[in-house]
Amino acid sequence: MIIHDWATGPYPARVRIALAEKGLAGQVRFRSVDLFKGEHKRPEFLAKNYSGTLPVLELPDGAFIAECTAITQYLDTLAGPPTLTGATPREAGMIHMMNKRAELEVLDPISVYFHHATPGLGPDVELYQNPEWGLRQRDKALRGMRYFDQVLRGRPFVAGDAFSMADIALIGGMIFAEIVKLPIPEGCDALQEWHGRMQARPSVRNRVTLSG
Amino acid sequence: MIIHDWATGPYPARVRIALAEKGLAGQVRFRSVDLFKGEHKRPEFLAKNYSGTLPVLELPDGAFIAECTAITQYLDTLAGPPTLTGATPREAGMIHMMNKRAELEVLDPISVYFHHATPGLGPDVELYQNPEWGLRQRDKALRGMRYFDQVLRGRPFVAGDAFSMADIALIGGMIFAEIVKLPIPEGCDALQEWHGRMQARPSVRNRVTLSG
Ligand SMILES: N[C@@H](CCC(=O)N[C@@H](CS)C(=O)NCC(=O)O)C(=O)O
Ligand SMILES: N[C@@H](CCC(=O)N[C@@H](CS)C(=O)NCC(=O)O)C(=O)O
Repeated sequence: MIIHDWATGPYPARVRIALAEKGLAGQVRFRSVDLFKGEHKRPEFLAKNYSGTLPVLELPDGAFIAECTAITQYLDTLAGPPTLTGATPREAGMIHMMNKRAELEVLDPISVYFHHATPGLGPDVELYQNPEWGLRQRDKALRGMRYFDQVLRGRPFVAGDAFSMADIALIGGMIFAEIVKLPIPEGCDALQEWHGRMQARPSVRNRVTLSG
Repeated sequence: MIIHDWATGPYPARVRIALAEKGLAGQVRFRSVDLFKGEHKRPEFLAKNYSGTLPVLELPDGAFIAECTAITQYLDTLAGPPTLTGATPREAGMIHMMNKRAELEVLDPISVYFHHATPGLGPDVELYQNPEWGLRQRDKALRGMRYFDQVLRGRPFVAGDAFSMADIALIGGMIFAEIVKLPIPEGCDALQEWHGRMQARPSVRNRVTLSG
């Protein structure tokens, strides 16, 4: 399998972490798509992923799976434990909800902030910016961090008692937060403690240099 | 189980269609949350779903599952065929990708257009609007429809040979398109043909009056 990605990107990180957690890193090769040169907006890449985003998983038969959640769902069933997407209907429901919520309330808003209210990938790639919208999204992400702090006061992981895809999505958000220099708000001790635990995981620590 | 929703909403439609396809309508009761009165932004409802959106599934033990994708994933494993989220890892990957893509490229942009560049839910609910962003999202959705037209030239359903959660997400987009009077672009014959087939399904036709 081939992963088309950019090693330091926050969304690519999600799939790299999932691969390491599942022990599947040996089964993939990585191919780099240069975000800062806008390679992800060129026709060759758009044919692989209409949305023009990384990462994309290429299967041996030439099919492409884009979207971190879809790739993680696929990888999770290829190999045994740990389960990242839930073992029971209820777990699956909770994990998918919290995964989406981490995207909607933290990761995606920071991405919009980056692309619209900071220089982003540079003037050759950021052809349209809406700074007012970008700043609103930054504030939404900070509120989202406070929400997840509350969640993590009640349980050790984002979706319950076990590490899951939902933790990975929020880790993606925290990686992006660091890139755009958005610190965890004061008083979010549970989020901070969780963040320390996540950063200590080998899958998270070694994600950029992960190799097959 | 209780579904908190608004009968004519495009996102609620997704869960109503899933319930009917799975033969699970008899197992739920519906509780209405009045979008036009902004009931979904009040503290009582935000305690159920931080994101303040409908629908939300309430389980018998009092747990809440928000997010259409998460609810559908949950319901899909509660009952037997038809499978809406895929029977193999590959099917699951493809369905989750196309489901997310239908959200990202059609349904969600139309929602943003509605809330930001039309009167939306009215001045008491729409406290901040960014019309320029809203109009951009409308244009994105129209491009998205052209993309799905291309996809549907090659296969009968959004994610392959069978009806799935991805069709349901795009149906949600088309329901919202009708509400905001955004017609399917000229020449999108495959999308139009698929749309006709989808509208003929009892799950789609009877969704507003679905009852337990
Ligand atoms: N919804 C996508 C988002 C992926 C995404 O935004 N990836 C970033 C790389 S970190 C990207 O490609 N950004 C380029 C852009 O949006 O122009 C997913 O979950 O995979
Ligand atoms: N990501 C959510 C979106 C749900 C959504 O936007 N629902 C609409 C009702 S059709 C809503 O609650 N809109 C109110 C608002 O955004 O203010 C999902 O997939 O369930």
